[in-house]
Amino acid sequence: MSQATDSYVQLHQDRFLEELKEFIRIPSVSTSPEHAEDVRRAAEFTANALRTAGLENIEVIPTERHPLVYADWLHAPGKPTVLCYGHYDVQPPDPVELWESPPFEPTIRNGNLYARGAVDDKGQLYMHVKAIETLFAVYKTLPCNVKFIVEGEEEIGGASIAKYVAANPQKLKADVALVSDTALYAEGMPTLCIGLRGLIYFEVEASGPARDLHSGLYGGAAPNAVYGLIELLAKAKDPQGRILIPGIYDDVKEPSPKEIESWKALPFNEQEFLEKEVGASCLIGEPDRMVLERVWSRPTMEVHGIGGGFSGQGAKTVIPAKAIAKVSFRLVPEQKVDRVEAAFKEWVAANTPLGIKTEVRRLSGSPAIVVDPDHPAIQFAAQAFKQVMGRDTVFIRSGGSIPIVGDFGRHLGIPTILMGFGLPDDGLHSPNEKFKLDNFYMGIKTIAYFLEEYGKQ
Amino acid sequence: MSQATDSYVQLHQDRFLEELKEFIRIPSVSTSPEHAEDVRRAAEFTANALRTAGLENIEVIPTERHPLVYADWLHAPGKPTVLCYGHYDVQPPDPVELWESPPFEPTIRNGNLYARGAVDDKGQLYMHVKAIETLFAVYKTLPCNVKFIVEGEEEIGGASIAKYVAANPQKLKADVALVSDTALYAEGMPTLCIGLRGLIYFEVEASGPARDLHSGLYGGAAPNAVYGLIELLAKAKDPQGRILIPGIYDDVKEPSPKEIESWKALPFNEQEFLEKEVGASCLIGEPDRMVLERVWSRPTMEVHGIGGGFSGQGAKTVIPAKAIAKVSFRLVPEQKVDRVEAAFKEWVAANTPLGIKTEVRRLSGSPAIVVDPDHPAIQFAAQAFKQVMGRDTVFIRSGGSIPIVGDFGRHLGIPTILMGFGLPDDGLHSPNEKFKLDNFYMGIKTIAYFLEEYGKQ
Repeated sequence: MSQATDSYVQLHQDRFLEELKEFIRIPSVSTSPEHAEDVRRAAEFTANALRTAGLENIEVIPTERHPLVYADWLHAPGKPTVLCYGHYDVQPPDPVELWESPPFEPTIRNGNLYARGAVDDKGQLYMHVKAIETLFAVYKTLPCNVKFIVEGEEEIGGASIAKYVAANPQKLKADVALVSDTALYAEGMPTLCIGLRGLIYFEVEASGPARDLHSGLYGGAAPNAVYGLIELLAKAKDPQGRILIPGIYDDVKEPSPKEIESWKALPFNEQEFLEKEVGASCLIGEPDRMVLERVWSRPTMEVHGIGGGFSGQGAKTVIPAKAIAKVSFRLVPEQKVDRVEAAFKEWVAANTPLGIKTEVRRLSGSPAIVVDPDHPAIQFAAQAFKQVMGRDTVFIRSGGSIPIVGDFGRHLGIPTILMGFGLPDDGLHSPNEKFKLDNFYMGIKTIAYFLEEYGKQ
Repeated sequence: MSQATDSYVQLHQDRFLEELKEFIRIPSVSTSPEHAEDVRRAAEFTANALRTAGLENIEVIPTERHPLVYADWLHAPGKPTVLCYGHYDVQPPDPVELWESPPFEPTIRNGNLYARGAVDDKGQLYMHVKAIETLFAVYKTLPCNVKFIVEGEEEIGGASIAKYVAANPQKLKADVALVSDTALYAEGMPTLCIGLRGLIYFEVEASGPARDLHSGLYGGAAPNAVYGLIELLAKAKDPQGRILIPGIYDDVKEPSPKEIESWKALPFNEQEFLEKEVGASCLIGEPDRMVLERVWSRPTMEVHGIGGGFSGQGAKTVIPAKAIAKVSFRLVPEQKVDRVEAAFKEWVAANTPLGIKTEVRRLSGSPAIVVDPDHPAIQFAAQAFKQVMGRDTVFIRSGGSIPIVGDFGRHLGIPTILMGFGLPDDGLHSPNEKFKLDNFYMGIKTIAYFLEEYGKQ
């Protein structure tokens, strides 16, 4: 632990924050074609930030959609190489009316920075950049070799980086990847995430009549595409939330009894989780599984929305010709993406209601990930965390999905350290997303310490 | 039947058509704020047309939204009074790219006039106006008293005229209302519509989590408002389309065996209806009911769309906090709006899934309408039809709802003659809306004959 890096971060933290705000003001919503230019600007911003921090060989790499940004510094022969990853794209801010301050005008309230992308992932990516700046400023060199690969499609499936990693394993080769796109288990508790769920995302399109029909003239005889989709999807789960699609649970690997024990030792208050985080009248899900199992080690199916027909203000009496549901499954270790896709498609075909035609399109798919907590890099990361935060690091899983971690494993043969500084109530993907400022600064320090310690190997 | 009126219509039919084209060229799309000025121009056009035809006391009546147009001629003491109704507003032309000729440039092909509003309802309203002109031209007087009330909000719910009728029963008092906003059952077949379904329209709002949640972090434990709504609404109907909500069928009055027999005598080809009108893979609905019963005399429930969550391009992994379904029921004679509302609300409350809260809001409600086919005005109308078209008039129902008919019944205590000259394939609300020119001219004659005959009472 270095007093010099600590001081540098403290001395420059206001500037770091102003720079991050500038980054956040770019509405780099990757899913919206109308924001394509903003996404490109965010890539340029990232490239400039990496250059300013002291990295070399900066590239803004065009892809079929949004650019990748690469940078490196490779002047520490004999030392290990760390591949830092982050994403500069963000989720749409909708519903905008629920934000207390404009989503792309970063605003500080109660020690938190509120904005879309504050924690997911611009703020956390920026911790990496500023850790590099800090190390260069203090030592005029880096303690180990470093590569950065930053993408602009994380929120839309990450297709371009997946291709790039597969095609460029030598260029990206490293000993370990470092990703900050997760959260501490609880405030003040150093946390490393060693498991992620996978994700397979579908569009299910239902067609009924050849065109939208007048519900007075045809209602009672014509099939309704929205209702057909409702009838179909309602059959997918029992009232508790257990998935009824045959074969879905076939390959599920249960966590070890030791891991389950460690989860039971974590502070978890179900009532508080319900009230403070979920805010519904009760939790749902498999009643024979504790909540951490339900969200970390069990597959789920969600319907994210249904398009088609009329859902605007007021009344329109239409029998919709088409409807599209967005449906995803979270996958757990050893579920196979292709087997889940096949099971779902077969089930949809078998359960499509009378008068309706359905088509299932897979938009993305990535399996679950587990990392060995005994890997040396993970141990150095746990040490760095402990140094900065003064407590033992806990090992958890996350129910979310970071497909790139799987790609790093598959194509580069390296594990990923998931060292995130968010908090459970940060509101990722929701209105009023926030990032605690103390965690932003602590993250910069922890990453700098980790690189220092790991470089001493 | 008067040879003189017949000749007058034939002599002037080209001018009538040119005038109608001018009316149609005004894009009076009532739902679009950017067309507000066009809607106002269409009201002025209507007022001028009524004045030119010979009517008196012309008023363009401002409302909260689009003006009403009133006119009358009340110089036939002792004779009955007919209240003519029509609407000068039109549906949006979207999708414009599917039109073969511009929607607001009336174009004649194969004896049809193609344009938005050609048949719904400018062309049919204009038949009334030209029938009045014809009678004045031939007789220098009218055979009975006439009032006109024309609205500009029919396509957006007709709120202003409903208020106006309720507030001005003396001014609008008549013996019968005459509405031409429906179609012949088939080409060449004189048709009077003597039944309309009612409509009750709801929004059902489901709430799950306090805010949209990340489906990775919370999926498996947090309730999903869109899925909750899906689970709920799927329980409302069996796979054939029969409504399972207790009490819904309680008050349904079956058509008389005689009426059912008359429906069976109508030409109806189920395969053609499926292929040419509906365009789905099959029809649905109560299997023990013939199709005309399903769409004319049976209650239905439709879900018009679901808002909430994510349904845009691409992928978003959100557990929606809120979802709103647009749900309507078509009502048949003797269903009570309030009882259906109570039954639906009770059912929703009893079937709301775990973790979800629901709220039901009624947006509108109007009961079904039946007109006694033995009413003298209906008999005169049937006679006029037979005279012009040379065939017996058939009495049908429509599955649609024309709320103004209910308002005329409730506030003025009068029945409505639904004497429309459209054809089933006119494409109302669709691209390439058309009006058969022969029907336009025939409509003018039939309405003139009806007024003559009715005035002889």
